[in-house]
Amino acid sequence: MDISPRHLRAAYRGGVLKPSDVAAHVLSRLNAADQSGVWISTAKPESVMAAARALDARIGEIDALPLYGLVFSVKDCIDVAGEQTTSACPEFAYVAKDTSPVVADAIAAGAIYVGKTNMDQFATGLVGVRSPYGIARNPHNPDYIPGGSSSGAAVSVATGTSSFAFGTDTGGSGRVPASYCGVTGFKPAPGAFSQRGMVYACRSFDTISLYTQQPDDAYDIYRVLARHDPEDCFSPVDFAGWTEQASPARPLKIATPRLDQLKFFGNVETERLFGDALHRLRLLDLPVTPVDFSPFTSINDLMFFGPFLAERDVSVGAFLDANPEAGVRIVRDLVIGSRKFTAADTYRALYEVKDVQRSLRAFWERHDALVVPTVGTILSIADVARDPLTANFNNGYYTNYASPLGLAAIAVPNAVTGAGVPYGVTFLAPAGRERLLTDLACAFTGAAAQP
Amino acid sequence: MDISPRHLRAAYRGGVLKPSDVAAHVLSRLNAADQSGVWISTAKPESVMAAARALDARIGEIDALPLYGLVFSVKDCIDVAGEQTTSACPEFAYVAKDTSPVVADAIAAGAIYVGKTNMDQFATGLVGVRSPYGIARNPHNPDYIPGGSSSGAAVSVATGTSSFAFGTDTGGSGRVPASYCGVTGFKPAPGAFSQRGMVYACRSFDTISLYTQQPDDAYDIYRVLARHDPEDCFSPVDFAGWTEQASPARPLKIATPRLDQLKFFGNVETERLFGDALHRLRLLDLPVTPVDFSPFTSINDLMFFGPFLAERDVSVGAFLDANPEAGVRIVRDLVIGSRKFTAADTYRALYEVKDVQRSLRAFWERHDALVVPTVGTILSIADVARDPLTANFNNGYYTNYASPLGLAAIAVPNAVTGAGVPYGVTFLAPAGRERLLTDLACAFTGAAAQP
Repeated sequence: MDISPRHLRAAYRGGVLKPSDVAAHVLSRLNAADQSGVWISTAKPESVMAAARALDARIGEIDALPLYGLVFSVKDCIDVAGEQTTSACPEFAYVAKDTSPVVADAIAAGAIYVGKTNMDQFATGLVGVRSPYGIARNPHNPDYIPGGSSSGAAVSVATGTSSFAFGTDTGGSGRVPASYCGVTGFKPAPGAFSQRGMVYACRSFDTISLYTQQPDDAYDIYRVLARHDPEDCFSPVDFAGWTEQASPARPLKIATPRLDQLKFFGNVETERLFGDALHRLRLLDLPVTPVDFSPFTSINDLMFFGPFLAERDVSVGAFLDANPEAGVRIVRDLVIGSRKFTAADTYRALYEVKDVQRSLRAFWERHDALVVPTVGTILSIADVARDPLTANFNNGYYTNYASPLGLAAIAVPNAVTGAGVPYGVTFLAPAGRERLLTDLACAFTGAAAQP
Repeated sequence: MDISPRHLRAAYRGGVLKPSDVAAHVLSRLNAADQSGVWISTAKPESVMAAARALDARIGEIDALPLYGLVFSVKDCIDVAGEQTTSACPEFAYVAKDTSPVVADAIAAGAIYVGKTNMDQFATGLVGVRSPYGIARNPHNPDYIPGGSSSGAAVSVATGTSSFAFGTDTGGSGRVPASYCGVTGFKPAPGAFSQRGMVYACRSFDTISLYTQQPDDAYDIYRVLARHDPEDCFSPVDFAGWTEQASPARPLKIATPRLDQLKFFGNVETERLFGDALHRLRLLDLPVTPVDFSPFTSINDLMFFGPFLAERDVSVGAFLDANPEAGVRIVRDLVIGSRKFTAADTYRALYEVKDVQRSLRAFWERHDALVVPTVGTILSIADVARDPLTANFNNGYYTNYASPLGLAAIAVPNAVTGAGVPYGVTFLAPAGRERLLTDLACAFTGAAAQP
């Protein structure tokens, strides 16, 4: 059953399907083989069906319910009232009192919650293998990682058990799995979505993110859910995305990293596939200009090797101290390891980010968007086991800088590798250009081979 | 000679005075007894006279030169090309290559630079006694401190050797000396003035500030100099003050701390004088409502006892390490002492400030301005010597929170104590209400006894 937003909406309007049909179908799928490692918990089937039947009865209100009858999953670091939040650490689990405002808004707009998805523990990783709940099975080749940290979220969309999925994205967690799983990952600019009701990774720029099959569906859901939250101190009153620009009438100016700054980590296949993507953009009359990528990547080290890690310590460090046996070793070591950074280190890092933001203002006046590979190479589970830190860092080369720099991003499929694993590209731009990014992504994927 | 901006402008227009007359007068005053401890260096007299004579010849351009013929001093942590910047530490001194953009704009607008003023070393203090260059003499009673850190700046205006003075304000350095010296201290909201070309205290919210005799003169100069600086990463493109609101037509809503939250540190005289100020506001049809002041003061400890201190370490810590004999002891200890704070401590502090900002949004919708005593009590030099840390902290009770919370402030005279030392009040509000604050300050001082 095609449960994509576009398809379901048409089917509901045409009377071909009811929300309860879709809910029943999804519930019947949750124990299928392709769902292995995807879910940390699922909603009670009777609750899902009750919600779906209530929506069946409200079909007359479909115009007022923009997410009517869409089934969705929630990454397990985001709260749903009455459900456990684990952040992929069973000892950390708590039953949430309140639902995250973003999720609550989705439910109020007619969407149906089905369960909580697996992830790299405490959203600390870009690989999807750092969880005591197993590895969400890559739907295209189970030897490969699903990407992380929002692994289960991406797989739930890729395997048709969610019309859309809530992930989170701090350093790439909402984009890397989109590449590995062959779906769309939409990462709002920090501030577009409320941050309340989630376990923070880096609270300064964490953002809830969206997965869908098609980029325009992600954008439509984004527009429904993006709003100022007066109770969230990181929610800006004057977020640029509230008054976002339409794509300009003139030809778009798209930048891409200079050839010598692209990294494919020795993979000639992915290098070729990204070249194909640029070629395809040119054929679409969207020529791409090579630019100096170093200002972006200059702050990457701060994410997993610098003082940014200390935000994770503020979030979960006291728990790890109180529970010396809890936590995946590599995650615990990263979080606790952040204690070597001083207050002065932090301010130096903050100034550095500010200065990169400033130096890029002129860049963003000259360019509408940046296109990059979502990841440099595709990694198998064995690759990551061999050198977990390098693998993780490599997966973030094209993603780490985006949220600290305040960018929105949309990761979409590009091609499929010989191993059968999808390989994507990401379009990035400052807040206010979400529509433009989506138009680009739609044009690109419309012309691309679908995985 | 009255060298206030308003007076000089009229005298220049009327042909009664020329800039070179004023320059010669000021130069003749720089070694007078009342200038003791005020200056760290002064401009070459021939340069001052040359600049003044050049302006004499440009009298026809007075309309295009809003600061025509005004003589000004610069706190010695701000750069003037070719002059030494010491930040009140002789071992730290360097000859500046470039002039701070704010100072350069003042000169381009017709103002005449006369010298660099004394200060608490590295702008770390609110007392004005932490300098190897002596204590700028309080013009009203030499037994009392001038207030700090911008002590010389305030005294240069109070004693008539500057039409206006550039200070800086991080935790109150541009307001406390205004109270002690009986002048106006105008502290822009962080971001209104470029931060380039200065020795940082807390770069996250340092701001250059202005001293004048009258509040409207400070505001007029502020309007000339406030602008976005594309080369300063802390200069916001969209600063609220660029489109500042006029005072509303309705009666203003002015808040003041609840009686039990006012602190006068045992001084019944200053307590009475602040009560008089509120009474005077009521007589002006500007009634004042007591409010909960605790959200403001809740972040005060971060300034001189918390991780905010680490920004000073980033600025001058390496110098202090390399020069173990340099530095005023109490300043060195504060800066080096900040190294006990971790990256996590810093993020906790940043979240706390963000949350206070958020919680005060509703407050600032309900209130146009806040009025507070500028300082709680007046301190003699002997008082500060007895307990320097407490004295300093007490001087910041009504000032520390303002810049971290993004507020603009104008400190003006209120009354004169029995010791002959002036005692002021401060009006505060978010960026965009600078005109309103100035209107309030003018109404208040128009009705107040001048020191």
